[in-house]
Amino acid sequence: MRELRKDLVTGRWVLFNPSRLQEPRPRPGGPARTFEKCPFCPGNESLAGREIYAVRAEGSAPDGPGWSLRVVPNRVPLLGVEGHLERREQGIYDRMNGIGAHEVIIESPQHGPLSAADLARSFRAFRERCLDLRRDQRLRHLVMVRGCAGREAPALEHPYAQVLATPVVPIAARETLFGARRYFDYHERCPWCDILDFELEDRRRLILETDSFAALAPYASRAPFEILLVPREHGHDFGAAPDGVLDDLGAALERVLDLVSRALGGPPCLTFVRTAPLRERCDAEFHWHVEVVPELFADLGVERATGIPVNGTLPEEAAAYLRRLETQKKGPS
Amino acid sequence: MRELRKDLVTGRWVLFNPSRLQEPRPRPGGPARTFEKCPFCPGNESLAGREIYAVRAEGSAPDGPGWSLRVVPNRVPLLGVEGHLERREQGIYDRMNGIGAHEVIIESPQHGPLSAADLARSFRAFRERCLDLRRDQRLRHLVMVRGCAGREAPALEHPYAQVLATPVVPIAARETLFGARRYFDYHERCPWCDILDFELEDRRRLILETDSFAALAPYASRAPFEILLVPREHGHDFGAAPDGVLDDLGAALERVLDLVSRALGGPPCLTFVRTAPLRERCDAEFHWHVEVVPELFADLGVERATGIPVNGTLPEEAAAYLRRLETQKKGPS
Repeated sequence: MRELRKDLVTGRWVLFNPSRLQEPRPRPGGPARTFEKCPFCPGNESLAGREIYAVRAEGSAPDGPGWSLRVVPNRVPLLGVEGHLERREQGIYDRMNGIGAHEVIIESPQHGPLSAADLARSFRAFRERCLDLRRDQRLRHLVMVRGCAGREAPALEHPYAQVLATPVVPIAARETLFGARRYFDYHERCPWCDILDFELEDRRRLILETDSFAALAPYASRAPFEILLVPREHGHDFGAAPDGVLDDLGAALERVLDLVSRALGGPPCLTFVRTAPLRERCDAEFHWHVEVVPELFADLGVERATGIPVNGTLPEEAAAYLRRLETQKKGPS
Repeated sequence: MRELRKDLVTGRWVLFNPSRLQEPRPRPGGPARTFEKCPFCPGNESLAGREIYAVRAEGSAPDGPGWSLRVVPNRVPLLGVEGHLERREQGIYDRMNGIGAHEVIIESPQHGPLSAADLARSFRAFRERCLDLRRDQRLRHLVMVRGCAGREAPALEHPYAQVLATPVVPIAARETLFGARRYFDYHERCPWCDILDFELEDRRRLILETDSFAALAPYASRAPFEILLVPREHGHDFGAAPDGVLDDLGAALERVLDLVSRALGGPPCLTFVRTAPLRERCDAEFHWHVEVVPELFADLGVERATGIPVNGTLPEEAAAYLRRLETQKKGPS
């Protein structure tokens, strides 16, 4: 049983997948899951699974050592590529099979923090997966997630990212898309282009700039020290991002993650790559971007009840603090 | 600084409130916050604050002992009643002051689980607060939350609920309202009335029935053993619910919370009372209801990335299990 069901009122899709029940209740501060052999390290390729994509030394054989990055199917996938969608009514309700792709990008042969080049390689791998997965006409949305989820003990120390491709546009992505359309309908301008212009002029929430990106603390940040990376050049499709832009993204993200870690003492932190839904026409109003969200607090009951996040730190304060940290790094060292 | 800011793209309001930073990072399994004197127990009324509403023995004085229920302002309110909204642009963005009400319903003089009568009294208190707070024309939405938030250590053992009144319709409530309108536009019927009819006929997801309510496992349950309590009689406004219905709601919720606790071993569990937004015309399409959501798992990274909840238990299985438990209770004892 792997099934997607739609909530009749909100239209929110929910995924039913029995593997979720094997997830232990997380214990922050408790011991991390340990493995006798790290399944993502070179030499243990068979534990991680057959590679879908890899960056390897010339002459090295697939599924053996000699790689700098591998993409493999998730061993416990939330969605599976095999089968038919079978969209169907169930009485007054709507359902379909849990078809999709759930892949793991093993971002480096080694443990430890990633370099700008490692991150760039990982983004290039995601771009390749975008180009490949979009050919599957059943899929409608793609997202890349880096970093362990909030209060979870990290499943693995080895650096990795996940790619999830779904046959529906998830409710959060629909909100973003509909909001972008509403904004475009009114202004005839892309909202992210406007944010970029405004923040580069205003500078209070600006954290750093690179050739291709601005990193800023969003005006309505959901979490303290949340960061938005916006490409200077408008484009809805991450799959079309040029090499140079992804190299620069790796460099920008390395600086941003380092700042957050120094500012907050390395809290769990999620990075999302947001690209346009695959089967929607949204070239003008959608602008791909990257979100970095530190997880400092558990949700309050009232946050759960309303969906209104409660944030104790203004983005102007967060940005000012991070700018100071950035200068310190550039300074004496 | 208590400020609401609107996300330019999604329209999601975020609350900035510096008191959030004093919240400790929760440690499930760690020791609960302890107090020398429970601020919610009789005799310590001055610690909890001046009462806004109370149910007391005849002749007992306000803010002293002799009560069975008190409503007081939250000591660390997320929103405050004083001041003006000051809706304003900030460049391309929108903001307003964090005006609203954040109250605590102290549901019983004693610690320990609540009886059906205690719960009914608490719902009657929320109804009174609805009728009072709606007179403040700045407020647009009200919600009641019971039970401690997920992975948080319970702040207090003493049973209490929270009331939050906001000057905006929170994004989750907007989704529900817009979804209900979309459904009504198409079918000319209230979606909850249809769910009620269908589930009472189908019976696979039905858990229990009372004179005024059906308790069911929603078709697209976000969490294992999530429960929806729907009043049999259509009504958009909790503030207009008759005494008899609230008494029956207390009895129904007592049974439901007991079942969830026996089924799952007493996980943290949130109860939300959902009533119609205050300044919207939605009599025909909105149907007030109560949600009970056990918190068994932390969000996965991909759940955070997409907003698609991942649930390991089908509602038909959850309902069947709870129906069996309900019979056992009724059986030999």
